[in-house]
Amino acid sequence: MTIGHRCWAIAEGYIPGDSFSEEPEFVSHETACILNAGGRDADIEITIYFEDREPCGPYRVSVPARRTVHLRFNDLEDPEPVPRDTDYASVIASTEPIVVQHTRLDSRHPNVALLSAMAHPVA
Amino acid sequence: MTIGHRCWAIAEGYIPGDSFSEEPEFVSHETACILNAGGRDADIEITIYFEDREPCGPYRVSVPARRTVHLRFNDLEDPEPVPRDTDYASVIASTEPIVVQHTRLDSRHPNVALLSAMAHPVA
Amino acid sequence: MTIGHRCWAIAEGYIPGDSFSEEPEFVSHETACILNAGGRDADIEITIYFEDREPCGPYRVSVPARRTVHLRFNDLEDPEPVPRDTDYASVIASTEPIVVQHTRLDSRHPNVALLSAMAHPVA
Amino acid sequence: MTIGHRCWAIAEGYIPGDSFSEEPEFVSHETACILNAGGRDADIEITIYFEDREPCGPYRVSVPARRTVHLRFNDLEDPEPVPRDTDYASVIASTEPIVVQHTRLDSRHPNVALLSAMAHPVA
Repeated sequence: MTIGHRCWAIAEGYIPGDSFSEEPEFVSHETACILNAGGRDADIEITIYFEDREPCGPYRVSVPARRTVHLRFNDLEDPEPVPRDTDYASVIASTEPIVVQHTRLDSRHPNVALLSAMAHPVA
Repeated sequence: MTIGHRCWAIAEGYIPGDSFSEEPEFVSHETACILNAGGRDADIEITIYFEDREPCGPYRVSVPARRTVHLRFNDLEDPEPVPRDTDYASVIASTEPIVVQHTRLDSRHPNVALLSAMAHPVA
Repeated sequence: MTIGHRCWAIAEGYIPGDSFSEEPEFVSHETACILNAGGRDADIEITIYFEDREPCGPYRVSVPARRTVHLRFNDLEDPEPVPRDTDYASVIASTEPIVVQHTRLDSRHPNVALLSAMAHPVA
Repeated sequence: MTIGHRCWAIAEGYIPGDSFSEEPEFVSHETACILNAGGRDADIEITIYFEDREPCGPYRVSVPARRTVHLRFNDLEDPEPVPRDTDYASVIASTEPIVVQHTRLDSRHPNVALLSAMAHPVA
């Protein structure tokens, strides 16, 4: 059984620039949770879209067979970091079927806020 | 590859009338995050549905090719502002394929609350 | 264009029994946001499923043409109220195509928490 | 009418290790809300995926006909507990059609945060 799709889109994207704590689990962040339940490693390319300039990418990440990677957009560095306090969106393309879910933890105030949505399966 | 659909629906809609802060990022708001990953500009019409009167619209917005717009329902003015503290829903129709995600930030209290859902792809 | 489906399912359901305030907008609640964007009134039947007893319903509600109803599960009374602090799920069947989104506001503490998900389109 | 699918995936997964309270309703938890609206009992197998080791499972649970089970990942014990403060993902396979929705309650701080997403229907 094939689990997932090879291309997903997330229209929401916003990393709050502030955090009440510097502990990694409490730093404001956005995550693309990627599940590769199949038997082959997945090579993944992420493109980031902005409001007022050309898209940026591809950012490359691998998710091995039968593994999940909860990728923080905060940690993307190459070709450039994802700017904070800036609206963006993303498209996630994979060589193998994957499942993608989007989560934000907003810790600008000490009681965190959370949101999550399954990404939109494109193809 | 075509990314998205030309019509989306969001059944939830409610802009809290209060906010603990007047800083734009902390004002209570609802957003339709729209991604146009394609090569042509998208002309978009939004219709707002209410509980007790005829729908309002179309509100018009453009999302250029390869851009995202995180449109705050708070900012819609023409043909009329979206009322606060009022239940509504929306249908978003585009000339080009787009992806739409719905987010609310509720800042009636100092620690914000968030919700998000991918819109429902209609056609 | 037909907007939506005639049957939707929500697997999550839980109305917290406590609220920090008795103002209606701050009472802990769960909502089925229903959009009927079509030209005919929709007659809707909701069935509630539980962990340890037979389902309850149908609860009946009408959503006129071109209207949205944000139906609080808290307000369902006939055939019986939905119990608080109890896990449940729901199936929402309509005579006309509708779109359904699920939202909870948890106000057991003064800073509310929110969650939302588009319901699952069944048919 | 068949309600749901026989296989679902949840790419997000993270049980916070801390909770401000030990009352069951306020312990930080993740839930797979499962609805079996059909007429036959569903035997379900859950597989948990990790970032750095082979998947774990199957965890087995039954959801009787016309019932919902809101299964806490916290409560899974066999073949082993789900580790806290650890990224994971899950695939939920059933002998009968079901609907699955994912919810987290994060109570590391006294004002809880919530997220929810419908799981991704695989097949």
